[in-house]
Amino acid sequence: MPVNIPKTDQPRVVIIGAGFAGLKLARKLYKHNFQVALIDRNNYHQFQPLFYQVATSGLEPSSISFPLRKVFQNIKNVFIRIADVKKIMPDEKMIDTTLGTVWYDYLVIATGATTNFFGMESFMKNGIPMKSVSEALFLRNTLLENFERAVTRLDKEEKRRLLNVVVVGGGPTGVEVCGALAEMRKFVLPKDYPEMDFNNMTITLVEANTHLLHGMSPEAGDKAVSYLKGLDVEVKLNHKVLNYDGEEVELEDKENFQTNTLIWAAGVKGQMPDGVDPDFVVRGNRIKVNSFHQLEGHDDIFAIGDIAYMETEKYPQGHPQVAQVALQQAKNLAKNLLNIQSEKAQAPFEYKDKGSMATVGRNRAVVDLPNLRFAGFPAWMVWMFVHLMSIVGVKNRLVIFINWLWNYMTYDQSLRLILRPSSRSVEKQKRNE
Amino acid sequence: MPVNIPKTDQPRVVIIGAGFAGLKLARKLYKHNFQVALIDRNNYHQFQPLFYQVATSGLEPSSISFPLRKVFQNIKNVFIRIADVKKIMPDEKMIDTTLGTVWYDYLVIATGATTNFFGMESFMKNGIPMKSVSEALFLRNTLLENFERAVTRLDKEEKRRLLNVVVVGGGPTGVEVCGALAEMRKFVLPKDYPEMDFNNMTITLVEANTHLLHGMSPEAGDKAVSYLKGLDVEVKLNHKVLNYDGEEVELEDKENFQTNTLIWAAGVKGQMPDGVDPDFVVRGNRIKVNSFHQLEGHDDIFAIGDIAYMETEKYPQGHPQVAQVALQQAKNLAKNLLNIQSEKAQAPFEYKDKGSMATVGRNRAVVDLPNLRFAGFPAWMVWMFVHLMSIVGVKNRLVIFINWLWNYMTYDQSLRLILRPSSRSVEKQKRNE
Repeated sequence: MPVNIPKTDQPRVVIIGAGFAGLKLARKLYKHNFQVALIDRNNYHQFQPLFYQVATSGLEPSSISFPLRKVFQNIKNVFIRIADVKKIMPDEKMIDTTLGTVWYDYLVIATGATTNFFGMESFMKNGIPMKSVSEALFLRNTLLENFERAVTRLDKEEKRRLLNVVVVGGGPTGVEVCGALAEMRKFVLPKDYPEMDFNNMTITLVEANTHLLHGMSPEAGDKAVSYLKGLDVEVKLNHKVLNYDGEEVELEDKENFQTNTLIWAAGVKGQMPDGVDPDFVVRGNRIKVNSFHQLEGHDDIFAIGDIAYMETEKYPQGHPQVAQVALQQAKNLAKNLLNIQSEKAQAPFEYKDKGSMATVGRNRAVVDLPNLRFAGFPAWMVWMFVHLMSIVGVKNRLVIFINWLWNYMTYDQSLRLILRPSSRSVEKQKRNE
Repeated sequence: MPVNIPKTDQPRVVIIGAGFAGLKLARKLYKHNFQVALIDRNNYHQFQPLFYQVATSGLEPSSISFPLRKVFQNIKNVFIRIADVKKIMPDEKMIDTTLGTVWYDYLVIATGATTNFFGMESFMKNGIPMKSVSEALFLRNTLLENFERAVTRLDKEEKRRLLNVVVVGGGPTGVEVCGALAEMRKFVLPKDYPEMDFNNMTITLVEANTHLLHGMSPEAGDKAVSYLKGLDVEVKLNHKVLNYDGEEVELEDKENFQTNTLIWAAGVKGQMPDGVDPDFVVRGNRIKVNSFHQLEGHDDIFAIGDIAYMETEKYPQGHPQVAQVALQQAKNLAKNLLNIQSEKAQAPFEYKDKGSMATVGRNRAVVDLPNLRFAGFPAWMVWMFVHLMSIVGVKNRLVIFINWLWNYMTYDQSLRLILRPSSRSVEKQKRNE
């Protein structure tokens, strides 16, 4: 059955996914002569770079989630549909969703990336990923529940295992969550649990590579290591994890760690919708596109953002899977769709690297700009400013700013709620499965 | 097995429940020579009067939930334990919880009240209660999901049923949620869903009594009716509901309503822990206490707040189940426990009614003070001030104030997130059942 979207004179662009790429594209297109159907499984856009602050009780989910309908209020040519995409059907120029079918003139796949466990079952089962607001909230609950359990235990080994945290993956997410946890251990937990001794709580970051922050400069990676060590985080470079049964992590060199909390931030893979011709699926489960974002031979199907894999002269191995690439690709595709409409030539995509950054707790960050690298307090200020400005919505910006200021002055976030779903919502979720 | 709480020289007061009564008592006692064990199933205090604003996307859960450990930071004689109480065992001077047993010198039952469906199965199954933050969030999700479903439906009857809301119970909660929904329908929904016509959406408040806001003055009830009518809320006084199958509400006079969303705010009953001698259990599932809050004949067991039922000269039918009573009882009990300690006589409880109030959307409220009744904008200002000042925590106050100011200026809350629990948290909840 077709989804209820009226047919109009405007050509219909169906966008799957309202992440950085999909949302930006929809915002660029609605002012022009297009009908936009924006399809996402959630009714909100998620600001991924700050998930780790939700997980560590620094920010509310709502501060980094923005309702899609609020973005497109009063816009009559944008049709938001909350659904899972079941399949794309290029031959019929149609997609199938949990709400029904949607035909398209142009299809844009912007489904993004999800956690990659590299087929390691034990981590998939017992590790905690952090690729959605819901998962970040689950991590927040797990951390707090484990602290609560620790306080009631007499056995020292068990207590320690409940407090310890192991983070796998030394990219920005892994580094940032370690920094936030280390500050929580230092400034908050001893006050919250005066009965407990947190000197024995360990935070360990395991990275298979020789450097942290792979993708940034080696200097930034080294600086991150020294920042983390300054916060008493144990950093294990060149170490691979083998197995995790929920209590013990096995490393390749047989040095094992006891922990009930393992955060998995080790990698991503494309969220591939069914129906994409396997010829286009390349390394990292991404979709190979030409420099106009098209699946070669399909002039009406595009892929942008983390799911897209484009080889260019400057990036023969594809672009990094970061927000800046997604945003710039969305802009270029919007321009190209207008070009197609006015029968002009399409412009090939070229990525302009504006730099990258990561933060490691208060006053500390690393920034790599194209011609300048710096670290410390100025980098931290830049990190905050850039992230604040990237957030959708003036009120969100204001609320996050107040939260950060508050945390900075008091050394104490106050969002440590174990907010469980009501029994009714668990019932409902079960019925829907 | 006993819960890990060290035995000290201080007499141990075990408080079950960290609502208004239990939290206030703990805050009064920790400064004195007592060991306080505070037991709650959640790690946060919930500010019940504003649940309806969470349900209608006006406030974040975290703005009205305050982590208990934050309240008692660095306090060494308060022991917070997150557990369900399974049973009280007066003969052993002990309680049993999901974490194990806890012995007491003094036991205070402050378990509060929960939703009363008066044995009506169909409402229990299909109606939505609003007596916890989790339930308020479930209601928020249900409302938003139903709007999303409505937008995809072509059948007019089905569409209307998804939009309509019926609220059962005309106390402050029922009145306030109707006001908030009516404003959402007027100011927000038409902008969020330009495809839909909200003129057909009905909001109906059903109350069995002859007046709204039973417990306040008849004038306040009448004023609330006229405010609600001004907002196009249908008010059915003197009407009893009989049945609700999830789509149709049957009223006693055979006038039926079609709705997928029925909010149940019709009544409460005490949350009785197992092990209370049935002789003490009275009307409304409350515990009968003497004027010193004691279960007669048990000098070491007390009940305060919504669960307690005390007959006094001024209140021969017991006190109303409101925050003010709970707070004043906690204060009196704290004083009496000190009196017992210093071998002074205990003071009987006397309730000082400071008045009551309810709000019906922007600029409108009713206030009954002991010697003065007023309504309209001044009442609304008083309502906001009193609620803001009652909230625990300066940051919460600040955040709520910004939210209210923002909503007031923009006519638009922006928290309309359908935040579902992650699949992992549903899994976990299932395992725990």
